[in-house]
Amino acid sequence: MLIHDNSKLVMIGDSITDCGRKRPVGEGDGGNLGTGYVSMVSALIGATCPEKRIRVVNMGISGDTVRDLAARWQTDVLDLKPDWLSVMIGINDVWRQFSRPNVIESHVYPDEYEETLENLVKTTLPTLKGLVLMTPYIIESNKNDAMRQMMDRYGAIVKKIADKYGAVFVDIQAAFDRLLTRYYSAALALDRIHPNTIGQMLIAKEFLKAVGFKWE
Amino acid sequence: MLIHDNSKLVMIGDSITDCGRKRPVGEGDGGNLGTGYVSMVSALIGATCPEKRIRVVNMGISGDTVRDLAARWQTDVLDLKPDWLSVMIGINDVWRQFSRPNVIESHVYPDEYEETLENLVKTTLPTLKGLVLMTPYIIESNKNDAMRQMMDRYGAIVKKIADKYGAVFVDIQAAFDRLLTRYYSAALALDRIHPNTIGQMLIAKEFLKAVGFKWE
Amino acid sequence: MLIHDNSKLVMIGDSITDCGRKRPVGEGDGGNLGTGYVSMVSALIGATCPEKRIRVVNMGISGDTVRDLAARWQTDVLDLKPDWLSVMIGINDVWRQFSRPNVIESHVYPDEYEETLENLVKTTLPTLKGLVLMTPYIIESNKNDAMRQMMDRYGAIVKKIADKYGAVFVDIQAAFDRLLTRYYSAALALDRIHPNTIGQMLIAKEFLKAVGFKWE
Amino acid sequence: MLIHDNSKLVMIGDSITDCGRKRPVGEGDGGNLGTGYVSMVSALIGATCPEKRIRVVNMGISGDTVRDLAARWQTDVLDLKPDWLSVMIGINDVWRQFSRPNVIESHVYPDEYEETLENLVKTTLPTLKGLVLMTPYIIESNKNDAMRQMMDRYGAIVKKIADKYGAVFVDIQAAFDRLLTRYYSAALALDRIHPNTIGQMLIAKEFLKAVGFKWE
Amino acid sequence: MLIHDNSKLVMIGDSITDCGRKRPVGEGDGGNLGTGYVSMVSALIGATCPEKRIRVVNMGISGDTVRDLAARWQTDVLDLKPDWLSVMIGINDVWRQFSRPNVIESHVYPDEYEETLENLVKTTLPTLKGLVLMTPYIIESNKNDAMRQMMDRYGAIVKKIADKYGAVFVDIQAAFDRLLTRYYSAALALDRIHPNTIGQMLIAKEFLKAVGFKWE
Amino acid sequence: MLIHDNSKLVMIGDSITDCGRKRPVGEGDGGNLGTGYVSMVSALIGATCPEKRIRVVNMGISGDTVRDLAARWQTDVLDLKPDWLSVMIGINDVWRQFSRPNVIESHVYPDEYEETLENLVKTTLPTLKGLVLMTPYIIESNKNDAMRQMMDRYGAIVKKIADKYGAVFVDIQAAFDRLLTRYYSAALALDRIHPNTIGQMLIAKEFLKAVGFKWE
Amino acid sequence: MLIHDNSKLVMIGDSITDCGRKRPVGEGDGGNLGTGYVSMVSALIGATCPEKRIRVVNMGISGDTVRDLAARWQTDVLDLKPDWLSVMIGINDVWRQFSRPNVIESHVYPDEYEETLENLVKTTLPTLKGLVLMTPYIIESNKNDAMRQMMDRYGAIVKKIADKYGAVFVDIQAAFDRLLTRYYSAALALDRIHPNTIGQMLIAKEFLKAVGFKWE
Amino acid sequence: MLIHDNSKLVMIGDSITDCGRKRPVGEGDGGNLGTGYVSMVSALIGATCPEKRIRVVNMGISGDTVRDLAARWQTDVLDLKPDWLSVMIGINDVWRQFSRPNVIESHVYPDEYEETLENLVKTTLPTLKGLVLMTPYIIESNKNDAMRQMMDRYGAIVKKIADKYGAVFVDIQAAFDRLLTRYYSAALALDRIHPNTIGQMLIAKEFLKAVGFKWE
Repeated sequence: MLIHDNSKLVMIGDSITDCGRKRPVGEGDGGNLGTGYVSMVSALIGATCPEKRIRVVNMGISGDTVRDLAARWQTDVLDLKPDWLSVMIGINDVWRQFSRPNVIESHVYPDEYEETLENLVKTTLPTLKGLVLMTPYIIESNKNDAMRQMMDRYGAIVKKIADKYGAVFVDIQAAFDRLLTRYYSAALALDRIHPNTIGQMLIAKEFLKAVGFKWE
Repeated sequence: MLIHDNSKLVMIGDSITDCGRKRPVGEGDGGNLGTGYVSMVSALIGATCPEKRIRVVNMGISGDTVRDLAARWQTDVLDLKPDWLSVMIGINDVWRQFSRPNVIESHVYPDEYEETLENLVKTTLPTLKGLVLMTPYIIESNKNDAMRQMMDRYGAIVKKIADKYGAVFVDIQAAFDRLLTRYYSAALALDRIHPNTIGQMLIAKEFLKAVGFKWE
Repeated sequence: MLIHDNSKLVMIGDSITDCGRKRPVGEGDGGNLGTGYVSMVSALIGATCPEKRIRVVNMGISGDTVRDLAARWQTDVLDLKPDWLSVMIGINDVWRQFSRPNVIESHVYPDEYEETLENLVKTTLPTLKGLVLMTPYIIESNKNDAMRQMMDRYGAIVKKIADKYGAVFVDIQAAFDRLLTRYYSAALALDRIHPNTIGQMLIAKEFLKAVGFKWE
Repeated sequence: MLIHDNSKLVMIGDSITDCGRKRPVGEGDGGNLGTGYVSMVSALIGATCPEKRIRVVNMGISGDTVRDLAARWQTDVLDLKPDWLSVMIGINDVWRQFSRPNVIESHVYPDEYEETLENLVKTTLPTLKGLVLMTPYIIESNKNDAMRQMMDRYGAIVKKIADKYGAVFVDIQAAFDRLLTRYYSAALALDRIHPNTIGQMLIAKEFLKAVGFKWE
Repeated sequence: MLIHDNSKLVMIGDSITDCGRKRPVGEGDGGNLGTGYVSMVSALIGATCPEKRIRVVNMGISGDTVRDLAARWQTDVLDLKPDWLSVMIGINDVWRQFSRPNVIESHVYPDEYEETLENLVKTTLPTLKGLVLMTPYIIESNKNDAMRQMMDRYGAIVKKIADKYGAVFVDIQAAFDRLLTRYYSAALALDRIHPNTIGQMLIAKEFLKAVGFKWE
Repeated sequence: MLIHDNSKLVMIGDSITDCGRKRPVGEGDGGNLGTGYVSMVSALIGATCPEKRIRVVNMGISGDTVRDLAARWQTDVLDLKPDWLSVMIGINDVWRQFSRPNVIESHVYPDEYEETLENLVKTTLPTLKGLVLMTPYIIESNKNDAMRQMMDRYGAIVKKIADKYGAVFVDIQAAFDRLLTRYYSAALALDRIHPNTIGQMLIAKEFLKAVGFKWE
Repeated sequence: MLIHDNSKLVMIGDSITDCGRKRPVGEGDGGNLGTGYVSMVSALIGATCPEKRIRVVNMGISGDTVRDLAARWQTDVLDLKPDWLSVMIGINDVWRQFSRPNVIESHVYPDEYEETLENLVKTTLPTLKGLVLMTPYIIESNKNDAMRQMMDRYGAIVKKIADKYGAVFVDIQAAFDRLLTRYYSAALALDRIHPNTIGQMLIAKEFLKAVGFKWE
Repeated sequence: MLIHDNSKLVMIGDSITDCGRKRPVGEGDGGNLGTGYVSMVSALIGATCPEKRIRVVNMGISGDTVRDLAARWQTDVLDLKPDWLSVMIGINDVWRQFSRPNVIESHVYPDEYEETLENLVKTTLPTLKGLVLMTPYIIESNKNDAMRQMMDRYGAIVKKIADKYGAVFVDIQAAFDRLLTRYYSAALALDRIHPNTIGQMLIAKEFLKAVGFKWE
């Protein structure tokens, strides 16, 4: 596995990451890591390769956009001195353009998204042993859907930045697309955004596959 | 307005109708009618034509299919002796085929839906002064969406029965389709099913238009 | 409709306006706008003319008098930069003279009411595209009732100010008087002040009629 | 005082009597008697003439009409074997005709009220040492008010029955009328029905005066 | 009655006075005055002589000694500008000497009690139209009981100060002694301190008798 | 210790025994035995002589008189097949005569108390290896106090029955009397009945002393 | 994977299985399957091989022994008509012998355990497509520990029955033993019984490995 | 008993001491001292030798290590001016090395433990009349258990410091070891750390024995 022994892995993001984690820092047993993919990643690593002694920390906050991430980056990422960092952000940046179309000050458009995310990556990378960037997604198989199209633009930005800076790239949208050939979206997430445990496990598996985790 | 003076109007359905109504019978002020279209219909009639003295009763139950409606029809419709009755059912009949694809005993397929609904209509019609049948819907503009296609089949069954028995027919799906030319679905309902107050008001307006309500 | 496309409409007032809105700013879906006339105005506009993209913001606070409004005017009106503003205030100014006759420091008498309200209108008008002033009211048909007589004085002040400054004037008291020819007050509000959904819908309809809203 | 030493006094009625009393039988300290006139009657007797050793029992139930009283008369009055009984009923019989005008099955009209109340009095009187009948009331000074007029009809029925059967008669409406020369109704009860502690104390005082209680 | 028309009467003390009053200032309807003698005093005055328009304010705080009263005297008495003031304090000053014998810093001995109370009286009297001092008490008939003996010393101090400064003196201990010839203490207060409604009404009656209140 | 190895000891009584034990049967860790003397007895035996493997079961119910005990004797004592049984009852039998003097049906007078208790003892004794009878008590040092005098009569009945049937007798009243030479009653129990942990520990110690428990 | 397409897999057991599942039947999204290994098994299957359309049902009940399982076998297993069944039981059978040594009626000794479990297996096997038996365990590496020794006896019984009837056998104890070479027990379960998410994931993985699940 | 008459005894520690004590200072009746050994010590002293008038204060805080104790020593020990002080700390210092092996900043290793504890003892001793040091413990009989071995090292440090400074030493670990010859650990504490009432009583007894307390 790419993640080094004794590493501290901080995973930051929005409600998909948060899932009820402990405040101010989500680390440790039970509900401290929330009930989503972060907890599953921690459990799969802990049950499979305990000798690596990897610490997993959940710093997701529900509702966050990349703009919110930037505002809390010092305390919620840098101060924690992670060895590895994973970032999954952008869903709210897109979603509010569609769910609250009139509230324009809540929208984070592609330019701001790219500039902010790139800036965070660029300045943080020197302090890390490894960085993972995961795409935002919508659990919607219709690629002509307006919000899907917009989400794909943000996913492409993530890929572009990951490529430019040599980060591990995880295409969560592509993973859900594969699952959507078997399930209708409502079997994974009623609102096409917040997945049930099947969808959360999918994210955990994609993350682990990308960092070279071995199942047995 | 088609609804006669001094009528008792019972509105039955699923969670779209229920919206937290009082148990066992939802009638009266404040939250007794719930917070959805039934309360809005009652308020619009009461504020506009109080001289008609129309009683509105909400008998929706969250999660119901037409199969559940049939099971409680005697106590929840016939025993209340409505003059007018409105029925909006079918969303769960369809939804569970997509959200719980493996739990097949929870699915109500088109044949059962049609037979059950028609039977309820046929046996109840003689006791009524008026009957309104509203289509189920999904707030999804893509007509190729699998669940949308299935929902349209159920909507067509409602229209067929309404035509056959001379009931007032309200095409809620068509109304949402018009709204979807202006809104993305997430601005009306996060899960494409349970609308916010804009969507509930749309249902109330469509119902009232169909029964000839005059706004002023 | 008088309200311009893309406008932000702020509605301020007391408990009739508040109805459990979100703090500090009431905007958005579901309960954010509360359960009263503001939510109904938003829903009727949203369901009928979504292309106008009007934002509705609820800034009512239960128990407020015009004195309280003045104290929070900067943060709760000016800072929000509304295009249109509606104000319905005065019920508590009057009510406490009758419900707490001994607590004279809680009373806002007509002179203070007029001076304060006029001052708010005069200084705010230049920043607005449109202003709506609605009368306070009591749901009491007896015009010789002591509190009704006093409330009518405050309503007359509102009309006077609206006329002087060219604001849209909405006579809510007159609207309730029409309804009271059909209902006894207890069918609309147990305390003659806080209306049920019928009375709240009446306020919403009067507001919308005054700004030229078209029902269909 | 008319009430005999060592008597058990049962006081029955609606929400004015109930005031949160203990179920199934309200007797004893603290909240067991509720927070209304029954508790005050008990406290005034207990503090003033403890040597009389009078037991006070509260059997009020919120929302009751005389029809509801008749349905629970056996368990809630006769089975308790009171020496003295007080009855204050009729407010809901009248109120619902005005607050829920369309729900006619909830109305108890004068004929039913008179026949039911008289029947309860006639059959119970032989088992009692004393009976007190108190009028229903509305805290509304306008005698032309529609609900006030109706309430006065019910109060007249109470007086007629009290006279015919020699019960102690307490005119609560008249007592509130005297207070209304000093207070506006909202200073005693926001809904003109449920009094604050001043109004509850008034009822307690009227009851005690009628049974010859001496303050010192 | 000694209390002047339009007076504001502030009643301060410990838990006997407090009884769940509203914070920071207990004034107005329902529970605002708590459920003890202050509420009863207000209700008896309001129901009997509303024309006097007397405001009653409850400033009791559970657990207070005279030391605590002095610490909050500026905000809780002087700032409220009472016309009349009543003080009932001392129970906790004594009680803690017996219930927490080892926690000596919580004890307020007679010298401190007298000096503190006298100082409050002396400095406040010039700002008042009238002052009422009520004794602390224990609902215990055995005058040889150790706590009763101590309480009597504090009661004597109250009387001494009342006499010296011409305050209205109310001997609550004596009143309970009269009641104890008819009741065992447990029928009035399980802990001999916190009375049920009978005992609270007794305090209200004693206060009112002392200020010349007429029952009818 | 008198209690045999592997015995099941059932302790029955009123609120002094109950102290929040688990229903329907109080046995086991933590709160299952409540927070009073039963838990302390169990903990002292368990910590000191675990090799005896004694099971302790709490069957107290708050508010019980001996009349209530008799009514539940079959299920709450006999069905549990205790080896040893302890009974402490009588406080409520006496207390209600003083706290609710008018509610005479709640009083259990000495004759009924003696006859009922003796009958329970007589019929149960043959099924037991050992029986402990503890006196009721009042934490009141004044032997002329009316309730103390009555309680002493009940204590004497317990002693008489214990002597007659050879039960272990524990004089809890005498133990509290010794403690009252050092403490005022309020330092042990605010209501002279329900002791704090010091008083509960006293009961536990007296019980254990009577059955020959060794501290070390 | 051994589990057939479209199978219904019922997993029954004690608190390790239960983990807050829905009553009466735990099936579906979110918390319905609880937060333990059953949910993880369902999520891993659903995310990896959705085309198999396997239904997972959680029927664990906290605190159950094999005696309790037998008592609810008809309703909780047979009536659900599972295709595959997994059973993990025995922890409480053993644990109570150590945690409640005196409460012998709560102990299920090896003979009863074996006879009961074998009987359930024997009678149910003909109705199943597949059966999985998992060992009980204690997260304790010291094989001389008294409870560990006893638990190993029960695990051997499970193995014996699995072998005799050809069930899939899963040695959970052995899996934990491997993990205990890396972790101290407290890092997996504070009480050595209820694992955190790492331990629950271990159980899920062992189960899946035994039925031939492929990770990718 | 070593503890002097009229002494104030402060007992500080972690969750074993805390047990839900009152904040900020745990002193007095009922739950103020929590439900653990502190409350039992207070009750045993109070019931046995009330004439000593010893005040017991609980300053335990759940989760504390010696590092946490040092941080709050000024406010939680020195400011309270104890005569006698007892300290039981170290369990969390050890436990987290095993339960959270990766979170190394939470570990307090032996050197820091010894230095910190000795420093607290050295600087505080001059202000005290007596000091009691109790060992941390684990309720685990296997002396080869990794955490047991580490705990024994910390216990030895406590003994070393107690000997060096002449403090009363209480070997709680040894006491539990004696009990473990009769009980399996699960009968005293599910997690081998937090004892039930038997284990808490054991601590209380050991403490009292060490300070020369006499049971009778």
